[in-house]
Amino acid sequence: MAEEPVSAPQSSSAAASLGHSVIPIVNKLQDIFAQLGSTSIIELPQVAVVGSQSSGKSSVLEALVGRDFLPRGSDICTRRPLVLQLVQTKRKPDGTEDEYGEFLHLPKKKFYDFAEIRREIQTETDREAGGNKGVSDKQIRLKIYSPNVLDITLVDLPGITKVPVGDQPSDIEARIRTIILSYIKHPSCLILAVTPANADLANSDALQIAGTADPDGYRTIGVITKLDIMDRGTDARNFLLGKVIPLRLGYVGVVNRSQELHTEADVLDRILR
Amino acid sequence: MAEEPVSAPQSSSAAASLGHSVIPIVNKLQDIFAQLGSTSIIELPQVAVVGSQSSGKSSVLEALVGRDFLPRGSDICTRRPLVLQLVQTKRKPDGTEDEYGEFLHLPKKKFYDFAEIRREIQTETDREAGGNKGVSDKQIRLKIYSPNVLDITLVDLPGITKVPVGDQPSDIEARIRTIILSYIKHPSCLILAVTPANADLANSDALQIAGTADPDGYRTIGVITKLDIMDRGTDARNFLLGKVIPLRLGYVGVVNRSQELHTEADVLDRILR
Repeated sequence: MAEEPVSAPQSSSAAASLGHSVIPIVNKLQDIFAQLGSTSIIELPQVAVVGSQSSGKSSVLEALVGRDFLPRGSDICTRRPLVLQLVQTKRKPDGTEDEYGEFLHLPKKKFYDFAEIRREIQTETDREAGGNKGVSDKQIRLKIYSPNVLDITLVDLPGITKVPVGDQPSDIEARIRTIILSYIKHPSCLILAVTPANADLANSDALQIAGTADPDGYRTIGVITKLDIMDRGTDARNFLLGKVIPLRLGYVGVVNRSQELHTEADVLDRILR
Repeated sequence: MAEEPVSAPQSSSAAASLGHSVIPIVNKLQDIFAQLGSTSIIELPQVAVVGSQSSGKSSVLEALVGRDFLPRGSDICTRRPLVLQLVQTKRKPDGTEDEYGEFLHLPKKKFYDFAEIRREIQTETDREAGGNKGVSDKQIRLKIYSPNVLDITLVDLPGITKVPVGDQPSDIEARIRTIILSYIKHPSCLILAVTPANADLANSDALQIAGTADPDGYRTIGVITKLDIMDRGTDARNFLLGKVIPLRLGYVGVVNRSQELHTEADVLDRILR
């Protein structure tokens, strides 16, 4: 271990600084291609979040960003793919933070209020997918600038659903699966397969669809949500240890905020405004 | 209402007594056909319980019988279709009850101990489907004789599962769906579509498969389980009122025993033995 104490960190920091200069350029290219309606030939690694409706996908994404800004609830919420580019900014000399979001479809506007970002996502979703639970494959592209994030691209995808509701067509399940697969089929895409702990892991829509795109499990990470509301007398030990369904990259257990806490936060937000 | 106070009850009791005499004969015929490996041409109405793995199907069936006798747990438990014929017996003159079970594959043996019925189901499941989570379409036929039941035939079916575990083949989902459909496709089959309240109703495997067999929803009853372990801040009001997915026959909400209580009951049972 004493032979090469310096070289490894050096090369990794060199790679990191190379990433810092390449990522903004490729992001820029992707934005241009997205506006033209085609996809870029260069594929930057993305992290896509997949799972059944209300499994906690958007909450997992928010936890990675550290801010509340996604539509959430016990109904279908994510109805268009949301491509979320996190851009790390330098902290100001006086120590204050400057966090804001920018949508590709509103290029001039900086959103400093994250509740406003949520409303804009809802408005823009309704504009393309209609107000009554319809789903569209047209992306919403959002950049979040913050000193507290890593340079990474996350994709929030519509949840898998089985029975059409509202304006949804009868083949809603197939449509949503097609949207999800169009992202996770790329070998550069890391898949976060979100499964709630209060259902059986063998019945996970997330692990099933991840398995069709990544059959050898090289780029799938299992995320077990809702550990706090499992049935009394059951536990997720065997899920998390990979004893039920093994994954090379393993499992992570998370506890997101409950719907109750979300509702309270929304009420508070409305009062304070 | 005063015009015909007698005729309606009369005819319904006539129908009931006709049923009482016809049902045992058809049951007998079905048993004979089942032993020959073919299915009877006469189809008696059956009630089939469908849903995803661990949604609470077996617990719902047990509640209908009023006794604990089915294998249960957080893993795959029902791995062969269980056809359960309930036969109403007369209460003895001294008021005592005589409840027992009889398997078609063990015709001479009366099971008075319901824990022993559970063990026999497990043994017989393993014999045909193997000990490691395999699934078979070969029926287990069980008769329960009791003064506390209605003359009715219930079918417990394997839960829908997505990702193969143990000895399960890669097409396990398709196989289980085929088994389920072979029962619920018959127009004389009433479908109890069991969905846990802690998942989104639009993502219900039960309602989806019921919808393929009964697209107009004439013979599907929604059963919402796990109402006690929903996420804090959510409720099942819109599920139960049929506002999310309407069903002609409506929804019933139930709270089964938790896994914890089941485990406690099993321990008690083992101590008392």
